[in-house]
Amino acid sequence: MEVGIMKGNKMKAIIGLDIGGSKILGALFTEDGKILTRCKKKSKASAGLDVVLGQIFKVVDQLLTFNSTIELLAIGAGAPGIVKKESVIEFSPNLPFRNFNLADAIIDRYGVPFVLANDVDTALLGEWKNGNNYNKKHVIGLFVGTGVGGAIIIDGELYVGASVAGELGHMIVKKGGARCGCGNRGCVEAYASKTGMQRKILKEIKKGKKTSFELEHNRMMKSSDLMEHYKEGDQLVVKVVDRAMEYIAVAIGNYINIFNPEVIILGGGVIESLDDDMIDHIIVEAQKVAMPSLNDSTIIQKASLGDDAGIIGAYELAKTFKIK
Amino acid sequence: MEVGIMKGNKMKAIIGLDIGGSKILGALFTEDGKILTRCKKKSKASAGLDVVLGQIFKVVDQLLTFNSTIELLAIGAGAPGIVKKESVIEFSPNLPFRNFNLADAIIDRYGVPFVLANDVDTALLGEWKNGNNYNKKHVIGLFVGTGVGGAIIIDGELYVGASVAGELGHMIVKKGGARCGCGNRGCVEAYASKTGMQRKILKEIKKGKKTSFELEHNRMMKSSDLMEHYKEGDQLVVKVVDRAMEYIAVAIGNYINIFNPEVIILGGGVIESLDDDMIDHIIVEAQKVAMPSLNDSTIIQKASLGDDAGIIGAYELAKTFKIK
Repeated sequence: MEVGIMKGNKMKAIIGLDIGGSKILGALFTEDGKILTRCKKKSKASAGLDVVLGQIFKVVDQLLTFNSTIELLAIGAGAPGIVKKESVIEFSPNLPFRNFNLADAIIDRYGVPFVLANDVDTALLGEWKNGNNYNKKHVIGLFVGTGVGGAIIIDGELYVGASVAGELGHMIVKKGGARCGCGNRGCVEAYASKTGMQRKILKEIKKGKKTSFELEHNRMMKSSDLMEHYKEGDQLVVKVVDRAMEYIAVAIGNYINIFNPEVIILGGGVIESLDDDMIDHIIVEAQKVAMPSLNDSTIIQKASLGDDAGIIGAYELAKTFKIK
Repeated sequence: MEVGIMKGNKMKAIIGLDIGGSKILGALFTEDGKILTRCKKKSKASAGLDVVLGQIFKVVDQLLTFNSTIELLAIGAGAPGIVKKESVIEFSPNLPFRNFNLADAIIDRYGVPFVLANDVDTALLGEWKNGNNYNKKHVIGLFVGTGVGGAIIIDGELYVGASVAGELGHMIVKKGGARCGCGNRGCVEAYASKTGMQRKILKEIKKGKKTSFELEHNRMMKSSDLMEHYKEGDQLVVKVVDRAMEYIAVAIGNYINIFNPEVIILGGGVIESLDDDMIDHIIVEAQKVAMPSLNDSTIIQKASLGDDAGIIGAYELAKTFKIK
């Protein structure tokens, strides 16, 4: 057992939560960010709001049993969807929250400060604080998975604009192009996400293209399966993945021109499934899009925390309480 | 004659400069932003660095003759091109500055603090401070003229990222599309700027398209001439201007999704030449691109200062000295 910081017989701690559509991850951290214990439970999203809330409470309650001398300082959390500054979840695509004030529910029960952000924001916060470039203050995160999510850190703080900035996957990069889940055409997400790639593969199969890649209409493919077929040289998969990489490069290049960030962190299941050569290729193509004078000052790096990014970012959020 | 604020027989004042490729505009401001006097001189860019610098000095010298009791507090300026945080002009497309430290030259001569920013940044600063939404803190400026320039205010301060952020005209919105002056294809600038529109019109004329619009290869068309032919219903001009408006709308929609700014200010010669119905049409189309939850919190407004935006923004810059 690791030992936290003891003060007047109390062990001060912070909880970080990653509330997802299928599971809730939680960890109890020492004040300075060491993980003391973890907990994971199913979200039970289809069972409704009260059940999901009960699952969140179960995770926190279990973390608090770690030690009877725990003095909980704060709880931070990330959740998918539209999260307002006041820790209200306006809408979540995978959870039964509609204009739900999660802060009230948590504070009522635990009596400690609570702060909630979009899960992509917490993931970027975690990757940034734990990466090699935490001394940099302007950071963009692009997370390519089922969808394409984005997050923005400016001057060392999460930037959410008027309300919920950072829909970086819904930048149109091919006007009139492929249809996107958001209703528009030509968004980055329509080409680079698993959803976009799967749609394209199914469309090509319907047209008669041959592939050894077996896909089901109602089930999202796995990045690892996709990459296996890519490496085997399956022509359709190669075409679709190469196209996704081209669009990721355009997105990165655009974001360098727009933000000239000090760091761009690339994460998510699709990115994690790419090997180093493929990432290097994306970076080279992105740098062709960006202005030369901006390229020199922007570092592009791969995310490294995997599933821990969310809980670590939630801890950071709770610790600093700062969202711009 | 207007009277400034007198303190101990001295009139405290700030100078704002707008250093352009063809002319240098300057104004002497009271501490609280009232214009006391103005001056305008040719830049003489083709005559080289020393001559341009001499012209800048002449403008400042003349402004200082306004009153013998002037106590100059600071000088602010905007200039086109790549301006570094240290008030160094790395490169300017229309002025003979290459890695030139304008701050040193000004401070040597006048002995007061000097701050320089990109001219689009100062224009946005001017429009924001003098508009109806100066209480908002997250503001994006999109200026459509010969090119498409952009500027970003976050938390009430100019945002320049690692070095020179805000190349908002060089966001690719049509991958593989029209060639842009930057070397890429499909940038907003390639469709929405006068340069892009002129190139398209000349190309179509070469292909045999009829138009009553007379263009010269080596001379930039005027927005006002273009709009005259648009209103007369010249088919080619209508097609090209409508297309430009579509792309401006996509750019605005993308920037709402990316920044969710509180305000987007639209300026520049092309925007100024559009009537209110056309601006309204662009806004409606932009709001189709942006996510509904973000639209509600972003105000889109037209710039209103015209040529004064630069000097007023330069004054604001000098007054606050803050660039992030």
